[in-house]
Amino acid sequence: MPFATIGVDVGGTKVLVRAVDPARPALALAEHRVETPTRMVDVVDAIVAGVHAVEERLVAQGGPTVTAVGVGLPALVGAGGSLAYATHLPDAAGFEAGLTLAAALHHPVVVDNDANCAALAEATVGAAQGATDMVMVTLGTGIGGAILAGGHLLRGAHGFAGEIGHVQVVQDGRPCPCGRAGCWEQYASGNGLGITAREAAVAGRLPSVVSRVGSVSSVRGEDVVALASEGAPDALAVLDELGWWVAVGLADLVNVLDPAVVVLGGGVVDAGDLLLQPVRAHFARLAIGARHRRPPPVEVARLGSSAGAIGAALRAAGAG
Amino acid sequence: MPFATIGVDVGGTKVLVRAVDPARPALALAEHRVETPTRMVDVVDAIVAGVHAVEERLVAQGGPTVTAVGVGLPALVGAGGSLAYATHLPDAAGFEAGLTLAAALHHPVVVDNDANCAALAEATVGAAQGATDMVMVTLGTGIGGAILAGGHLLRGAHGFAGEIGHVQVVQDGRPCPCGRAGCWEQYASGNGLGITAREAAVAGRLPSVVSRVGSVSSVRGEDVVALASEGAPDALAVLDELGWWVAVGLADLVNVLDPAVVVLGGGVVDAGDLLLQPVRAHFARLAIGARHRRPPPVEVARLGSSAGAIGAALRAAGAG
Repeated sequence: MPFATIGVDVGGTKVLVRAVDPARPALALAEHRVETPTRMVDVVDAIVAGVHAVEERLVAQGGPTVTAVGVGLPALVGAGGSLAYATHLPDAAGFEAGLTLAAALHHPVVVDNDANCAALAEATVGAAQGATDMVMVTLGTGIGGAILAGGHLLRGAHGFAGEIGHVQVVQDGRPCPCGRAGCWEQYASGNGLGITAREAAVAGRLPSVVSRVGSVSSVRGEDVVALASEGAPDALAVLDELGWWVAVGLADLVNVLDPAVVVLGGGVVDAGDLLLQPVRAHFARLAIGARHRRPPPVEVARLGSSAGAIGAALRAAGAG
Repeated sequence: MPFATIGVDVGGTKVLVRAVDPARPALALAEHRVETPTRMVDVVDAIVAGVHAVEERLVAQGGPTVTAVGVGLPALVGAGGSLAYATHLPDAAGFEAGLTLAAALHHPVVVDNDANCAALAEATVGAAQGATDMVMVTLGTGIGGAILAGGHLLRGAHGFAGEIGHVQVVQDGRPCPCGRAGCWEQYASGNGLGITAREAAVAGRLPSVVSRVGSVSSVRGEDVVALASEGAPDALAVLDELGWWVAVGLADLVNVLDPAVVVLGGGVVDAGDLLLQPVRAHFARLAIGARHRRPPPVEVARLGSSAGAIGAALRAAGAG
């Protein structure tokens, strides 16, 4: 008897709902997308409407029965799908997402952190296929992370493991909204690239970019990537610096966790080899000294914006 | 039918061999100690002789039968007890410790990293009793670590997880033998305290210690602890600085791993509340901002120099 699970990924801009056959999870049986609301109560309505829409499509296609729903949220998810905190959903703290959604959907519901879902998907059908020990690092506006250890998502005692962006790499460094200073996220994320680029512009080390955008203060990370892709040496030097910062944190994570593979995702990785080449070069130098063995490969996430929904569907099927 | 397992801990100075009842592992049924040889081949002989001595004592006492032997080594231990590297045993690299010891001892043998063994013991009958998610940090000459996640030792893909001393906390910081710079170990270990103390002495910030030991260059970490215990404010300030460095790395580990408890062991912790009070105060400030929840307690290891042997005996009994 064929069956399907539905994975829901609540992203910063879109809610993606996707039905999959857990035996072939990379293939979408049916899909639905809506914009992400700004309040958790509206997110719940969007999830419920999206799951119903996907179920209707499955029925219309004569597709398999849905047995369970997995939901990936950009939140600290505690036991039983209780939300502890979500940066972009202020009313999410304390919300019983698992119970509320199960009651509304009339399906078993598994709620998990979105980065955990994406990592599970990449380890199952993506860039880390078959790995039981992997670290996924999402370089977006900030840095997200998820750790697979011995085939299981590393959750920690309260479900909050994987906040890898908030480790100190600089003493008395850039202030971080988390309350600390010098966090990795302030250097190796999209935001970090922007700060590094403006510092370089102020110091006169980014003339090509400043000339293109008109002023030092309007320099953004994207401008650096654009000029680097045109071969501007000053922009390439700033991306090399970003690559060093990314590699520093990867080497730290490898020393602590010893993964078989590191998977890099998030919008910053769209810079492609302009960033990946320096990341891999610096990482090889930083990682090898302490290890007496070859450092693990650094791979790029393959499932793109579908990873979270695929992983959530896998969670609903009992994986992770 | 009562049975016993034997745990062996190969420390920097002593090899401790201890027989325990795995149901009450804190109680030694028989024990034997010898000095640690400097070559791996001699370490093997010392282990074999020590296990035989303990078995003879058990027989003389009419004690239980030994079913298995666990061995904790200060080494990177790969699959099947193959040693990848040991800082203080240069001939250990590539040595098949598991196979060699099993053949010599005529017992099933489990070989593991010594820090993993100590952490397992602390989580079973020590400071983290009952915890399924814990981090043990050993502040000795360097920094050792072991991670328990979901009730299992986190080993990583090659068995090398837990090298927590080699994460960058300072950009372009103190050089580390691992090849990097600014590693946590260079600040928060016994060696790190010594460097911090001499820097403070050179800067004129440790007059009480310099006056006691006679010269700036002969200042050691132990002198700082001694003067701090007498209440010297300059020495207390340096220990507060050490406490900050320890707390920085603990906060990093808590953000990545979310343990229920952090256990501190190693010789540096012998400074007691002179160090623990600043560690806990700084840790509370560093950890809480990023977490939206209370930071985990920081406890002191309870099993002292027996932890490794107790944990090795537990490993032999199938734990971890």
